Amino acid sequence: MTGRIAARLAELRITLPAPARPAGAYVPFVAAGRLVFVSGQLCLWEGKLRHRGPVGGDVSVDDGREAARVCALNLLAQVRDACGGDLDRVARVVRLGGFVQCGSDFVDHPTVLDGASNLMMDIFGEAGRHTRFAVGASSLPRDASVEVDGIFEID
Amino acid sequence: MTGRIAARLAELRITLPAPARPAGAYVPFVAAGRLVFVSGQLCLWEGKLRHRGPVGGDVSVDDGREAARVCALNLLAQVRDACGGDLDRVARVVRLGGFVQCGSDFVDHPTVLDGASNLMMDIFGEAGRHTRFAVGASSLPRDASVEVDGIFEID
Amino acid sequence: MTGRIAARLAELRITLPAPARPAGAYVPFVAAGRLVFVSGQLCLWEGKLRHRGPVGGDVSVDDGREAARVCALNLLAQVRDACGGDLDRVARVVRLGGFVQCGSDFVDHPTVLDGASNLMMDIFGEAGRHTRFAVGASSLPRDASVEVDGIFEID
Repeated sequence: MTGRIAARLAELRITLPAPARPAGAYVPFVAAGRLVFVSGQLCLWEGKLRHRGPVGGDVSVDDGREAARVCALNLLAQVRDACGGDLDRVARVVRLGGFVQCGSDFVDHPTVLDGASNLMMDIFGEAGRHTRFAVGASSLPRDASVEVDGIFEID
Repeated sequence: MTGRIAARLAELRITLPAPARPAGAYVPFVAAGRLVFVSGQLCLWEGKLRHRGPVGGDVSVDDGREAARVCALNLLAQVRDACGGDLDRVARVVRLGGFVQCGSDFVDHPTVLDGASNLMMDIFGEAGRHTRFAVGASSLPRDASVEVDGIFEID
Repeated sequence: MTGRIAARLAELRITLPAPARPAGAYVPFVAAGRLVFVSGQLCLWEGKLRHRGPVGGDVSVDDGREAARVCALNLLAQVRDACGGDLDRVARVVRLGGFVQCGSDFVDHPTVLDGASNLMMDIFGEAGRHTRFAVGASSLPRDASVEVDGIFEID
């Protein structure tokens, strides 16, 4: 793998995981025109959950932020596949949808999601500036602490 | 109604419901370019909820999967309207967004959503391979067990 | 500001707030082709939360509806920026995504979201007819009662 973004990943000492297999009867990404939709990614690394349970409970906000970063790495592993291996084709990170497993008294979803958002900005610069929502979920698949889906614009 | 997908529905002995009326001040679908956005559909059949209450509580995972399938049938009823009655115009099921009403200890959202996803694959084949997210919601309109929205690409 | 929609806002005696600053490392809107994605907006007015806590608990359904309306005003403030100040360029409100902070027994999300949906219809008429989903969230950033994101089609 070569290219500007591959070099940037190397510079940041970031290795993308192998793309996670879907947890059910769906696919990791679909391209529609210039938009690539990526399925919700959990905070998995090589098939194992990095963080489980509610953020603000079993999992600290800092660990939640790390969980969101892992979700974002998984999104990028899928996007790289969608781009035939060349992340330089990412014209824009368009939107991240962030779900944080948490109880009713949690209020710091933005800090958690910044773990994913900062990664996008660090890697893509201007093209990494995206929209997002961040909300609380009563529960998430496999008891994951964070799930993030994404929409990307591709050249 | 004729056509390839209509024949496939007959072969699978699937009858789509009448399109559900919106629960408020919105519309069932909007086309923007080749994308059709469909509003969140509940597990309603002819105006009545098929499954209510939390999955993993009052409602078993199997019933939750059936509820998700009903949501998907309602999505398709709307898409058929959006296509002027001709589901052959569906080029791709792009994304399903799945919300499962459940408590904090539920972890099997993917199995529930597979009720919707398998239906799309069964009916559309390759064109039915979609992205999705599956998350827990603390509650859903009318106490529905599942709500699913969708994005479709149309020719 | 002049134009048809600006005149309509004046007629309705609606003043849009200053666009809210993002709560984290993201941006308020991204245009991709003719679609503009707007980040999730809370029920903030000039930096202060109008309604906090769960709808159906601390916050009545009527107040929840007002909270959703405030979210929608914040969406429009962002869209106006995205349009270089000219809301006449909004060809269609495509989709609103509505998250209502509430407990497990809440069932009236559609009435809450109608606060946002009615505003879009009142301002844009036919072009304001949109799709939406409305779901319960276990919690929301800053303890906000409602969060709404949006997708708009722009000329």
